[in-house]
Amino acid sequence: MSADRFILRLLPGRDRRVKGGHPWAFSNEIAMTPAAKALPPGSIVRLEGDDGVKHGAWHFNPHSLIAARRLDADPAAPCDASWFRARLAQALSIRDRMFDAPHYRLVHAEADGLPGLVVDRYGDVLAVQANTAGMDVATPLVVEALTALVAPRGIVARNDSGVRGLEGLPEETRLLAGDAAGAEVEENGLRFPVDLLGGQKTGWFFDQREHRARVARLAKGATVLDAFCHTGGFGIGCAAAGATQVTLLDRSEHALTTASQGAALNGVADRVTTQRGEAMETLERMLGAGQRFGVVIADPPAFAKTRKDQPAALRAYAKLARNAAGLVERNGFLFIASCSHHVAPGEFADAVAWGVHRARREARILHMGGAGPDHPLHPMLPESQYLKGMLLHLS
Amino acid sequence: MSADRFILRLLPGRDRRVKGGHPWAFSNEIAMTPAAKALPPGSIVRLEGDDGVKHGAWHFNPHSLIAARRLDADPAAPCDASWFRARLAQALSIRDRMFDAPHYRLVHAEADGLPGLVVDRYGDVLAVQANTAGMDVATPLVVEALTALVAPRGIVARNDSGVRGLEGLPEETRLLAGDAAGAEVEENGLRFPVDLLGGQKTGWFFDQREHRARVARLAKGATVLDAFCHTGGFGIGCAAAGATQVTLLDRSEHALTTASQGAALNGVADRVTTQRGEAMETLERMLGAGQRFGVVIADPPAFAKTRKDQPAALRAYAKLARNAAGLVERNGFLFIASCSHHVAPGEFADAVAWGVHRARREARILHMGGAGPDHPLHPMLPESQYLKGMLLHLS
Repeated sequence: MSADRFILRLLPGRDRRVKGGHPWAFSNEIAMTPAAKALPPGSIVRLEGDDGVKHGAWHFNPHSLIAARRLDADPAAPCDASWFRARLAQALSIRDRMFDAPHYRLVHAEADGLPGLVVDRYGDVLAVQANTAGMDVATPLVVEALTALVAPRGIVARNDSGVRGLEGLPEETRLLAGDAAGAEVEENGLRFPVDLLGGQKTGWFFDQREHRARVARLAKGATVLDAFCHTGGFGIGCAAAGATQVTLLDRSEHALTTASQGAALNGVADRVTTQRGEAMETLERMLGAGQRFGVVIADPPAFAKTRKDQPAALRAYAKLARNAAGLVERNGFLFIASCSHHVAPGEFADAVAWGVHRARREARILHMGGAGPDHPLHPMLPESQYLKGMLLHLS
Repeated sequence: MSADRFILRLLPGRDRRVKGGHPWAFSNEIAMTPAAKALPPGSIVRLEGDDGVKHGAWHFNPHSLIAARRLDADPAAPCDASWFRARLAQALSIRDRMFDAPHYRLVHAEADGLPGLVVDRYGDVLAVQANTAGMDVATPLVVEALTALVAPRGIVARNDSGVRGLEGLPEETRLLAGDAAGAEVEENGLRFPVDLLGGQKTGWFFDQREHRARVARLAKGATVLDAFCHTGGFGIGCAAAGATQVTLLDRSEHALTTASQGAALNGVADRVTTQRGEAMETLERMLGAGQRFGVVIADPPAFAKTRKDQPAALRAYAKLARNAAGLVERNGFLFIASCSHHVAPGEFADAVAWGVHRARREARILHMGGAGPDHPLHPMLPESQYLKGMLLHLS
């Protein structure tokens, strides 16, 4: 019952950010009384200032640095399955207005009013990720609400994100409801197989949808190298748009197998070859061997997992930019991306500029952008824009 | 003759940026000898370090803070009409790869290897802007090269940019070649009249092309307010995409007349009305009168003309965001933009977040982005990304 909710208090003078609309309260802003500390992680509390101002209903985890996350401005909001259904319905209506097919990130956490919750939609199969104790506890309500709203064939818990550790949660991938076999994603008019329960992360990164379309438009008649290709979204998109020959490069045999299935599904298997290898080393070897491509894509996993990795990550991005730029033909194109939270857009752009300059290439930046609109940002959390993509023309 | 070129020297220890690939040298980095100071603005020089390292052929203006701008890494590059034609041909080939119709910014200055030169292409009519003394002197070569390359019907000098004053150049708009009457621009499948020689700035802002398409996609079935509409590109795009009623608001009668012609050209005049007024005041009045719209667009001229305007500009953007957000229906959309060079993307986003919060609206940022890819950036001049557009959903 919402009336029984514990009243959690902000410390005197520490309420400015929350009053300004920020959806988080940090542990050092909260009166961590013994009673507060004893609350089970994921409890719903009423957050109030020491002045008695009511800040609404929040998820609380006494063991996390981001200790409280706002659910609703109304302290008595029920936060039950109907409440989740209303939030999900709004997120759904926005996606359905933006996309022709039901394949998108349906819920992107705080920005969709559901802190810590991520839901990806692959047609009739959904993948749910709970990145906070609150959303972990609430997962049955989320499943109930999703089932009522879109009647999916299957729902999978993809709780394989490292950030769960910060909340004291284990990593796990399991079926929550129905059946998820044979899932596919549709994007930019193409189809790709998606293995949601496989042993490796072979889901789909919806965030690059617009970048894939943008790169594909430049690939007609070109040869293409898709480095760190995962399941081949960029490269197969280029092949479908008329690239003459596409090389997909990844370290994972499993990802390359899925990529080959994708190439076949889209009728471009004859122009797509896969190559297994560590991308960084392979690029250097290709460079030494004099290989060149009309379009090179370099979309690596995050180089900076923590803030202290950031200087090394910037050096790695500069090196990647240098080698990738070297592999681009005259008047060709380079797309390079970073999904490191701990590397800011300006820092990444500087690293890429330095690498391209070291490759002795004159460059134009045609586009710099982030994740697509199914990954909205909360206005008070602009730093959650983790994806940085750069498209360059090299003379 | 390139052999006779004056050798301009960088000061000892002031060559680091130029060596790093930056395309500018500032006046305080250059040995301003009496002979250098006496060079006519717009001269082509050979820039060298005090260590004798050759940095290529540069445009030089002894009276400008940005005193030298790189033309070519080769000090002996001819920089004649053929040289311009080669640079223009490359810029053209990139645009033709990205766009279906010959309507785009053909040359975007430094990023296209032509510092200070802007060329907009409206099919068979071109508009040229020379923002440096060097490009002002070179305009006849540019006209010769453009004529050889695309055989335009007409070329107009649109030298009405305030930055010409920094180079000691007057503002002027005049016909350079042929005939420019009845020019039109095609964008996102629509046609708009463009008055290139009119008394007021009624050209076309190509930089918002992608934002116009993005906003239009959300406008089906909605009412739309296009504030600071200029010639109505956003609002008419929304009408063509199925908006039920579009209000175009601008202070300029001339712009609104052109906008009405555009609405008629695209067969949506029955759903488009124009309203003349100061947008800031009109928004407040509409708010007070309880008017609401499904989509609100606020794309004002630059609020910060100089760096010292920046604090006032941020307050103005916050106020604009507050009023514009207040006019958006529940579950509607707000697009707001800034083209102020002196307001950084993060600062603008913060001002918008504050304004939307003050309007007591919960918001999602669906997209933040800059100018389209026909406005490339030089990798060493990321700060030249002046345009900031934000698309928000308001619950």
